[in-house]
Amino acid sequence: MEGVPPITSVHYTKTVIAEIVAIGSELLTPFRQDTNSLYLTQRLNELGVEVMFKNIVGDNRENLAQVARTAIDRSHVVIFMGGLGPTIDDLTREAVADALGLKLKRNPDMVADLYKRFASRRVLMPDNNMRQADVITGAEVIPNANGSAPGQYIEGEQDGSPRYIFLLPGPPHELKAMWNDQCQQLLRDKLPRAFIATRELRVSSLGESTVDARVAPIYTKHTNVQTTILAKAGEVQLHLKCRAKSLPEAQAAVDRLAGELEDELDDAVFSTNGESLEQIVGYYLQMRNSTICVAESCTGGLMAERLTNVSGSSRYFVGGAVVYSNHLKTLLADVPPMMIEEYGAVSRQVAVTLAENFREICNSTIGVGITGIAGPSGGSEDKPVGLVYIAVADDRGTDVVERRFPGDRERIRWWSTQLALDMVRKKLI
Amino acid sequence: MEGVPPITSVHYTKTVIAEIVAIGSELLTPFRQDTNSLYLTQRLNELGVEVMFKNIVGDNRENLAQVARTAIDRSHVVIFMGGLGPTIDDLTREAVADALGLKLKRNPDMVADLYKRFASRRVLMPDNNMRQADVITGAEVIPNANGSAPGQYIEGEQDGSPRYIFLLPGPPHELKAMWNDQCQQLLRDKLPRAFIATRELRVSSLGESTVDARVAPIYTKHTNVQTTILAKAGEVQLHLKCRAKSLPEAQAAVDRLAGELEDELDDAVFSTNGESLEQIVGYYLQMRNSTICVAESCTGGLMAERLTNVSGSSRYFVGGAVVYSNHLKTLLADVPPMMIEEYGAVSRQVAVTLAENFREICNSTIGVGITGIAGPSGGSEDKPVGLVYIAVADDRGTDVVERRFPGDRERIRWWSTQLALDMVRKKLI
Repeated sequence: MEGVPPITSVHYTKTVIAEIVAIGSELLTPFRQDTNSLYLTQRLNELGVEVMFKNIVGDNRENLAQVARTAIDRSHVVIFMGGLGPTIDDLTREAVADALGLKLKRNPDMVADLYKRFASRRVLMPDNNMRQADVITGAEVIPNANGSAPGQYIEGEQDGSPRYIFLLPGPPHELKAMWNDQCQQLLRDKLPRAFIATRELRVSSLGESTVDARVAPIYTKHTNVQTTILAKAGEVQLHLKCRAKSLPEAQAAVDRLAGELEDELDDAVFSTNGESLEQIVGYYLQMRNSTICVAESCTGGLMAERLTNVSGSSRYFVGGAVVYSNHLKTLLADVPPMMIEEYGAVSRQVAVTLAENFREICNSTIGVGITGIAGPSGGSEDKPVGLVYIAVADDRGTDVVERRFPGDRERIRWWSTQLALDMVRKKLI
Repeated sequence: MEGVPPITSVHYTKTVIAEIVAIGSELLTPFRQDTNSLYLTQRLNELGVEVMFKNIVGDNRENLAQVARTAIDRSHVVIFMGGLGPTIDDLTREAVADALGLKLKRNPDMVADLYKRFASRRVLMPDNNMRQADVITGAEVIPNANGSAPGQYIEGEQDGSPRYIFLLPGPPHELKAMWNDQCQQLLRDKLPRAFIATRELRVSSLGESTVDARVAPIYTKHTNVQTTILAKAGEVQLHLKCRAKSLPEAQAAVDRLAGELEDELDDAVFSTNGESLEQIVGYYLQMRNSTICVAESCTGGLMAERLTNVSGSSRYFVGGAVVYSNHLKTLLADVPPMMIEEYGAVSRQVAVTLAENFREICNSTIGVGITGIAGPSGGSEDKPVGLVYIAVADDRGTDVVERRFPGDRERIRWWSTQLALDMVRKKLI
């Protein structure tokens, strides 16, 4: 490949395809998972590049070289992540060189940099570290602002079509910074200009199949927009993507479809740009100059946690009470002991009283009360595991619902907060 | 491959290696990730099988057949997940048959079952669904108790060494039940008996490199035990695994090493069987017949949420107060307004008062107080983002610490609760 002139302009007859190779024996254990590839996929999609294969392989030179060979054979853009450190387990440089039939050469400037880096910390550099200065013949070095292992970039050709090969470090903050600051532009310059616009609608309170049945007649008519429907943690996401000759054209196409989908699904659509339900609730609260407080039992703090994981939530979140014991329901939210005795701690009455009284105590615009049985124990024939009452109070009155959620403790808690947040949203619109 | 006699006993000269292929175009988007492979890896490891490659490929017959061919060439056990449904996108059956040079045959019993399944729901079966009855020649059908797509199992041979090929459905609850109830035993019967014991120690308050420096001289002496060190969300995990000729022998080897590691790391080890910090705190609280309550500000309910995500926590968790506003610090936890004015809401004094007064209000054995600045806004030169005070009170007195956590909002909140839980643990031992 040495001596191949740099490729500056290419005509693709079909989509540019990418392949991601994550390297590290820890990624083949039950404990660790590659997450970098989700980030890279998003950035590659923005360039109009589709990821067609992902591979995970251990720190084994032969296996890695084999995977590298296959990837370079079939994909235009190949990204290797990990295995660039100084230890003998770090074999990505060697294996990719093997796959390309190229040699490694120690770069003296990089050796000097490494010595400098260690000297500045007054530490003697172990010899091993010099391996990080080994560069594949013809590769461009990509400096790493956040770590000692630099990346490498190699251009090549396979059966008359171009190849763009990246070797990147595995730690997410190093990889992301390097891709963001250097690789994205580098690759963009090589590819035909692609203009891609995306939108993400999120839908609550409807199931995936119901959503699909209602929107399929619409999105199938928009053949220029790619629509992906995903159900995730109590909501349905509609991902729209359009590639066009200009950005305004692409944007107009996704916006048009998004508008039609919103008309069809009406207020079940809670978010039109991928915001989370707690973010949306936060927007509405700020817009209305309102505040919120929560008295929750079975969700054990999860409702407060979700409201406060939004940065800036101190502007509208007053506080919460996690009233697990009956004693605390009375003490913090003023639920009459007689009421608990008569109707039970898990009851419509207690949910309403939690919402209304805690709202008054906190002097807040909106009060939320949640009580239920998250399981796995604590259920009875009368009040089974999964039974949850949710109340949302403001000065116009109190909404209350009873639900029986299926699934395990985690799922029951999550769905309860999802529904509670959606009830708050509906009270605010 | 038809006509190859079933393989009942095999002698392996080296480790049995497995390869996992996850199928589905949604797994090549930025939004979805394969998680089944973590579960399968654990179960395969229990059989002494090592996963050497993982692949993710879209719903494309040619690409999938190519990946299948490569996998069957190089790995003894190959597991395909997904793409067994009724739609035209579900191509796993066809592609694996292509890779093996075999044909599909529609199984009349399965067609009858499908009709019965639809009839019982009084729904006419769309023709597409019959594809789920297509079986690769020579394959054994694996019934699916939780869905309509059955699995398939094929035995074969490649260059004189055996091949065990599984086609499994993608939805996690279908796949897990099928593997658990049927495949694990099926595969175990084919493999040489392997006895594998594992242990997981978890360590708090020490960094990964510190832990490694202290334990490397120990675990490197135990060459029969494989030790993996991982840093994860504020704790360090030590995974021990030993393969031996009998289970007692394997168990004794990991237990011996676990004991030596515990001696070295002392009470930094909070868990010796993989339990979470909140589970361990729960055990101690129950053992001591103690109760706990939390008054938290910057962690916004996360501390209560973690304590209560343990099933059975109602036995020891009394309740929590999420005192975001100063008003609520006073109202729910009796913090004097003068104190907040003098020292600020984020101060050692307020943390101590939250812990002590809320403990008294709740009449609980232990009280926890947390106050800090999770950011990204709200910091000052004096009190920067990441500054957190944590206090733990019981009848013998109150421990309080000041920390400055690096990172973003999510990380600061997580590490604060991690440290708070660890302080509670240390008070209980």
